[in-house]
Amino acid sequence: MGEKTRIHRLAERGVTDRRQINQILDEGLVCHAAYVIDDRPVVIPTLYVRNGDHLLLHGSNSSGLVRAVGDRSPLSVGVTHIDGLVVARSGFHSSANYRSVVVHGRGRILAGEEHRKALDVIVETLIPGRLSDIRHPTEAETKQTSVIELSLDEVSAKVRSGGPADDPADLTSDAWAGVVPFSLVAGEAEPAEDLRDGIPIPDYLQPYQL
Amino acid sequence: MGEKTRIHRLAERGVTDRRQINQILDEGLVCHAAYVIDDRPVVIPTLYVRNGDHLLLHGSNSSGLVRAVGDRSPLSVGVTHIDGLVVARSGFHSSANYRSVVVHGRGRILAGEEHRKALDVIVETLIPGRLSDIRHPTEAETKQTSVIELSLDEVSAKVRSGGPADDPADLTSDAWAGVVPFSLVAGEAEPAEDLRDGIPIPDYLQPYQL
Repeated sequence: MGEKTRIHRLAERGVTDRRQINQILDEGLVCHAAYVIDDRPVVIPTLYVRNGDHLLLHGSNSSGLVRAVGDRSPLSVGVTHIDGLVVARSGFHSSANYRSVVVHGRGRILAGEEHRKALDVIVETLIPGRLSDIRHPTEAETKQTSVIELSLDEVSAKVRSGGPADDPADLTSDAWAGVVPFSLVAGEAEPAEDLRDGIPIPDYLQPYQL
Repeated sequence: MGEKTRIHRLAERGVTDRRQINQILDEGLVCHAAYVIDDRPVVIPTLYVRNGDHLLLHGSNSSGLVRAVGDRSPLSVGVTHIDGLVVARSGFHSSANYRSVVVHGRGRILAGEEHRKALDVIVETLIPGRLSDIRHPTEAETKQTSVIELSLDEVSAKVRSGGPADDPADLTSDAWAGVVPFSLVAGEAEPAEDLRDGIPIPDYLQPYQL
């Protein structure tokens, strides 16, 4: 145990540094977007990317989210990475390490050239290098896929990292304390069953970096 | 490439099987809970566990979520696992593999014995075996930590798995197609800096199963 790196105690904190907020957003692929319909909240998961000072949310035209944005309903969009389980000596101080950003605002459904460009930005941000390899959307496909732009004007972020923050009186406990770290990892790319023979996994996918 | 397991094409689908829904919920630790305040949605991440036909959400007493539930505001709670990136030959069919559950309803803030038991259930569900090792909450600590119970009566679930579902005309493409799989993995437990010497990592944490 003596040789093992020990994890420092650190508490939860609000984050206002824009670089750190961007980093949290850039590590995610799926957000949970909430809107209000008939005075009730609805939350749905959807793919997103950050594009400068905005998020671009990917949505089907038929989705309630896209309709809500079209009606100028306010949104609340959350992105959370779960980094570990904080195993404290008391139940009260047991917790999770995480990084989380919540964005509030009214989205805008992109149209015309902005819409087409945003679809390209989504592909190229999720898989840098991919855009030149794919078939680009037809007019009909573009019409079926909405992109919601949401400004990063109103953003709050929270991070908890480090070890448990136990009460001094609990430090004599015989219970183990520390952190079980979690990470989302990408595995080796798996070819489609209908992939033609002789097409290698492209460099931009091996290894894919989340 | 010939020896490699190929991934079958499969599309997105709604899920109504309760066992599969429970499995999705049991694999998660953090949900995104949305509520409405002043006609605006607010989404926040919070720890949860499933307890039979209910979710138990962990909340600070001072949180807007707990206040909203106390006011009988409706909730929408989403849990999503992102399983991979679906790399199709067209931008339009590129997508993500995921499993997602959304629960709607009005939560109930637990009190008294129900509240104390629920705090135990949260600890023991997140880390089976841990409950007997920790210091149990004092009256003051219990008062600071709310537990919201939300029935799983109104649940919808969606899963996308498998390879890309490309248009037949795109199958002659020279572009690679398939899936980059993702998984959330737990690493080796890291001891706290203030852990007394000679306390080994307990069996229930090695390896911790997400």
